Amino acid sequence: MTRGTIMPIGGAEEKLGGTVILDRFVDLCGGRRAHVAVIPTASRLRKTGARYERVFKKLGVRRVSVLPFEERSDCERRDWLDDLERADGVFMTGGNQVRLSTTIGGSAVARLIRERNREGSLHVAGTSAGASIMAEHMIANGEEGPTPQEGMVTLAPGLGLTPDIIVDQHFRQRNRLGRLLTAIAYNPRPIGLGLDEDTAAVLSPDNRIEVVGSGALTVVDPSGMDFSSMDSSRPGEPVCLINIRMHVLLEGGTYDIDSREARPGAVSPRD
Amino acid sequence: MTRGTIMPIGGAEEKLGGTVILDRFVDLCGGRRAHVAVIPTASRLRKTGARYERVFKKLGVRRVSVLPFEERSDCERRDWLDDLERADGVFMTGGNQVRLSTTIGGSAVARLIRERNREGSLHVAGTSAGASIMAEHMIANGEEGPTPQEGMVTLAPGLGLTPDIIVDQHFRQRNRLGRLLTAIAYNPRPIGLGLDEDTAAVLSPDNRIEVVGSGALTVVDPSGMDFSSMDSSRPGEPVCLINIRMHVLLEGGTYDIDSREARPGAVSPRD
Repeated sequence: MTRGTIMPIGGAEEKLGGTVILDRFVDLCGGRRAHVAVIPTASRLRKTGARYERVFKKLGVRRVSVLPFEERSDCERRDWLDDLERADGVFMTGGNQVRLSTTIGGSAVARLIRERNREGSLHVAGTSAGASIMAEHMIANGEEGPTPQEGMVTLAPGLGLTPDIIVDQHFRQRNRLGRLLTAIAYNPRPIGLGLDEDTAAVLSPDNRIEVVGSGALTVVDPSGMDFSSMDSSRPGEPVCLINIRMHVLLEGGTYDIDSREARPGAVSPRD
Repeated sequence: MTRGTIMPIGGAEEKLGGTVILDRFVDLCGGRRAHVAVIPTASRLRKTGARYERVFKKLGVRRVSVLPFEERSDCERRDWLDDLERADGVFMTGGNQVRLSTTIGGSAVARLIRERNREGSLHVAGTSAGASIMAEHMIANGEEGPTPQEGMVTLAPGLGLTPDIIVDQHFRQRNRLGRLLTAIAYNPRPIGLGLDEDTAAVLSPDNRIEVVGSGALTVVDPSGMDFSSMDSSRPGEPVCLINIRMHVLLEGGTYDIDSREARPGAVSPRD
């Protein structure tokens, strides 16, 4: 396997002290030699790109290119495509993932990111909205709540870096287990990843996830699912799911997507 | 490219006289030497499997295996997996695509079909619900109407034979252009295929589609899309889409997914 690393982040990652998540991304991209491209398209705030430019500069990377695709026609800009062609890593900011998908979906930008990640020459990180869009299936929006209900989640095509996961973010903070379970209740093919804020799932080329950051990664593994009532439930009704396996992993914990094995991180001794 | 053929059918295909669609599938699978596996899981009617068994027998195939997966545990049955291992083609019947995805999704059955199709040793056809599930993205359900509206379609993961298309069926009969446009309004990556009844899109290994049958294939190509308002529309509101290309193709018409070129079929001279 030669794919580049895929690194969804649950939003609100530390940007000043304790930047373990962004540090890890910078390391992956080559540290002081790294060229990072920032895509702030999901955000409606004009300053988002410049903010991440400062953050990455402070973390010591060689070059940051901010690529604020605003319109679909921007996705044809040769200079920005050249930046993407040369970058070691792409970072997609938070905001609205549907703004991101409607702006770059199906464009030369999306194709280039997907192809370079597949061949292993580009690492891709995204936070919040930027995390949601990474996989083949994207949670476009949904409702809060702990248990699954028909109609509580809207799925849409994402960037397509991997078909193996569905990512949700701000997971504990916004009470999103129900919508993640609803998403997998249609078809237990992808596993569900629920990322708390300031928490990342570092998905390596060998399909192994490592947790980095201060919160938890909730893994919802439907591969042993015996039953889903999604085919007979009506809008707003609860969905019956039998035999979903769940793991809550903290920093250093790992999950192997192919073997479906979870392991805790090393437990630090108490002082 | 070595992938097997993928053949979504818009439902209600002719089963007695004028069986051009099923004939084409039988030919692909080897004609009189063919072994066809029928998966009637989408249907709640017990007789559906036996009905297609009679139809395929009448069309002259060597062997028909009916594999009525009812529960997820059925997807582990060794004898049925052996049949799938040896079949030249799989045919998925109509019914409810979410029953199909909740029953076989993420199972050994789904994996085997996907892998054998990818390596080119298995052709896959499906009608109605069986057509909807074939691609990476599946229309799980939705509302009727000609124009796109936020919330009028529910997408879910499908069988994953290709990420390049989203299939809708009973297209003209059930007034489904609006929901297909809504599906692509999130992310103009896949193209939308709207299949009328008794109409098939024969998707060959080289990503070229040929239309077979008595109705039309509506192709909705969003690759030149300049704008989608999906990120700002509210439930029930119309969605603004700028620059969607559409083709309505009849029997013999072709569409090349990679080059995005449509061609009409040979026009028969009027008597």
